[in-house]
Amino acid sequence: MTVIEIRVELKKGVADPEGKNTKKTVEALGFTGINSVKFVKVFEMDIDAPADKAKEMGEEMCRKLLANPVIQNYTVTVR
Amino acid sequence: MTVIEIRVELKKGVADPEGKNTKKTVEALGFTGINSVKFVKVFEMDIDAPADKAKEMGEEMCRKLLANPVIQNYTVTVR
Repeated sequence: MTVIEIRVELKKGVADPEGKNTKKTVEALGFTGINSVKFVKVFEMDIDAPADKAKEMGEEMCRKLLANPVIQNYTVTVR
Repeated sequence: MTVIEIRVELKKGVADPEGKNTKKTVEALGFTGINSVKFVKVFEMDIDAPADKAKEMGEEMCRKLLANPVIQNYTVTVR
């Protein structure tokens, strides 16, 4: 049993509306000095497989489903 | 300048439709042995403040805006 963490984030230069709106809203609440906010999606998966196999599965899931390679990068780490 | 990571995740027992649907879909693609999938939102913020102050700001943002304390937990870490 392995827990993997899949992070899917937008590539540099790609518009990040969720990050941008979060930045605007926290600034409207009075927070200052915020240079940037980036939104990242994380999937935590508990998989019945050894660590190397689980990591490989996570990477295949990203290629097939979870990430859009045109605008997103992904990283899979074993926890 | 400090980069903080804010993780907002659902509390145990709270329905996680995004995780559940991801699990169903990867299983439909042929992946097996997946015990659970949990969806987590992450905000990466670059803040003009020392680490301790930036962390405090992140926690205040969670209390005021980013997390719903009824159903979500949050953690703020300095990277």
